[in-house]
Amino acid sequence: MATDPLPLAQALIRCRSVTPADDGAMAMLEAALAPLGFACRRLRFGEVENLFARRGAGGPHLCFAGHTDVVPPGDAGAWTADPFGGEVRAGLLYGRGATDMKGAIAAFVAAVADRLAARPEAPGSLSLLITGDEEGPAVDGTARVLEWMAAHGQVPDMCLVGEPTSRARLGDVIKIGRRGSLNAAITLHGVQGHVAYPQRADNPVHRLLRVLHGLIARPLDQGTEWFEPSSLQVTSVDVGNAATNVIPAAARARLNIRFNDRHTGESLARMLRAALEAEGARFDLEVSVSGEAFLTRPGPFVEALKRAVRRATGEEPVLDTGGGTSDARFIARYCPVAELGAVGTTMHKADECTPVAELRALAALYRAVIEEALG
Amino acid sequence: MATDPLPLAQALIRCRSVTPADDGAMAMLEAALAPLGFACRRLRFGEVENLFARRGAGGPHLCFAGHTDVVPPGDAGAWTADPFGGEVRAGLLYGRGATDMKGAIAAFVAAVADRLAARPEAPGSLSLLITGDEEGPAVDGTARVLEWMAAHGQVPDMCLVGEPTSRARLGDVIKIGRRGSLNAAITLHGVQGHVAYPQRADNPVHRLLRVLHGLIARPLDQGTEWFEPSSLQVTSVDVGNAATNVIPAAARARLNIRFNDRHTGESLARMLRAALEAEGARFDLEVSVSGEAFLTRPGPFVEALKRAVRRATGEEPVLDTGGGTSDARFIARYCPVAELGAVGTTMHKADECTPVAELRALAALYRAVIEEALG
Repeated sequence: MATDPLPLAQALIRCRSVTPADDGAMAMLEAALAPLGFACRRLRFGEVENLFARRGAGGPHLCFAGHTDVVPPGDAGAWTADPFGGEVRAGLLYGRGATDMKGAIAAFVAAVADRLAARPEAPGSLSLLITGDEEGPAVDGTARVLEWMAAHGQVPDMCLVGEPTSRARLGDVIKIGRRGSLNAAITLHGVQGHVAYPQRADNPVHRLLRVLHGLIARPLDQGTEWFEPSSLQVTSVDVGNAATNVIPAAARARLNIRFNDRHTGESLARMLRAALEAEGARFDLEVSVSGEAFLTRPGPFVEALKRAVRRATGEEPVLDTGGGTSDARFIARYCPVAELGAVGTTMHKADECTPVAELRALAALYRAVIEEALG
Repeated sequence: MATDPLPLAQALIRCRSVTPADDGAMAMLEAALAPLGFACRRLRFGEVENLFARRGAGGPHLCFAGHTDVVPPGDAGAWTADPFGGEVRAGLLYGRGATDMKGAIAAFVAAVADRLAARPEAPGSLSLLITGDEEGPAVDGTARVLEWMAAHGQVPDMCLVGEPTSRARLGDVIKIGRRGSLNAAITLHGVQGHVAYPQRADNPVHRLLRVLHGLIARPLDQGTEWFEPSSLQVTSVDVGNAATNVIPAAARARLNIRFNDRHTGESLARMLRAALEAEGARFDLEVSVSGEAFLTRPGPFVEALKRAVRRATGEEPVLDTGGGTSDARFIARYCPVAELGAVGTTMHKADECTPVAELRALAALYRAVIEEALG
């Protein structure tokens, strides 16, 4: 009989690990992994608790990456269950992290337990890279643990991230990449003056309008085989000039670009700078890249995941690269990485929950992943 | 010997008639006009004092239009003289209204006095239309007095407005028209959403950028024989969206159009509405027209003014239609109107002042105007 992931999922939900707090979540996980033969290494960076746990030393090495931190419950009055209660009601497990992604961690641990019980001497090795800083700045989490892993010869051959990628039914979507995300803040300087004498002023609003219109007038690209077209959205323009007869001295805008692997944060920053320089006015440009685009091209690992999904769920998974960013962007620098997890409908919302049956199905799916990936 | 306009100019400056206050200015003017044979009629509309004074009943009828109200002194510390002191220092008369336009009223009264002394039975008739609401809303001032004049058979054949139109030397500029001015406030509504999923949102910033870029991309006109090209200036764009990952629900802009006589406030409002409707989104448009464009085409009256300037100052006056609005826009509906007055360099500023010699030269110029206009 299969190991039930529910008790560990409930125990993890009961830890109030609102990012970057840990509240005992890592210790709870260590307590579950140590009896299975995992060597657990706690890695604290800044105020963030991280865990790297590995069983076996041989290849191939499959790593499961995830996070025990959760977003805040938000408006407590909007919940019908205690966000940190781990309550099961009418077949649904309620709580912050039920889908994103304490449930997935529990499902993977259950899958490992069953794998080891069935084939104690199976080939390859397994590891877990668990951070407490995925929902926060993501600075002292996965990226730092990967540096440590690289320095200690622990880079895996492939990595599964347990984010809730499924759209309507478990396994219907596998994410094999993510778009990058860039934020820019632009200030364009002109010369203030009276609207009756525009020739004596230099209207920065008009200059900004020309620059921004140029940026939105043509698409950044037409998309690629695996990515939809990159998207530039101007999210705010702010001048704050209350006087109707005055041309203001400066105008500001902010924009966000979600970009595919035809671009990098640096190439886009160059493009923005060139557009501003072409306008010929004094400007300030601040760019921050919160994630580069990445893609794991379909190959042996993605094929193994597809076989596992078909076998465990009967779904024919769609390979997708949409949505926001995830820690997979850090892992992609080291090895093939893909994301596969629960149906994410309730993530980050009030009454986050997952059907217990689906949680158990996810454990079975992860066991199939281990089998398809390692043999 | 010519009548000196200085004492009346000083007496008027000493009235603290910051718009719409009168503080005795109208009574002071009546006291100067009554002895010259003017029938003075005080017209109070709302809280505004106005004066219509006429001498003689025959034609042609030349009206002088002006205002006794002034803008506030502003930062008192920036003045080296009392703004309401009427002080003469080193040949300069200091005070709020010295150039705009208590000085011009005093100069016209002095010119009338000299005209009557020299030719008591000269042809034509003279009047003064003086308001206390030119620097304010201009609702209960010149426009209302003109209605009263029309109702009482007092519409003049031509009108001289004593605004400080001279640029560098007295008489170098005669204004024969003014551009109109329109303010518009636009709100464009879209559908809020996450920047990662723009296809599920409708970015109102992009729609507003397209509309505004279309409005500034081509000139409204190429100017006319007497007017420079109309000018549209976007003075503010405001979204106020602090979240970098959110497409906002609405975007706002404000713009001002200074327009020549190829347009009317109504034709421009239609143009703005059509541009917004072409974008196909829900919008709010508020338009307020603070003045229509007007032009007094060069003809007998303007020729008389030019001759007067040449004779009194030796200048060859330029006919101009630039700058802001003035009460002449109301008068243009009734008769030919032009503006001719002091050098306006210090108007509305600290230490507003006029050389006493220039004030006296303005009186001589106005006397020449009366002679050239009436014979």
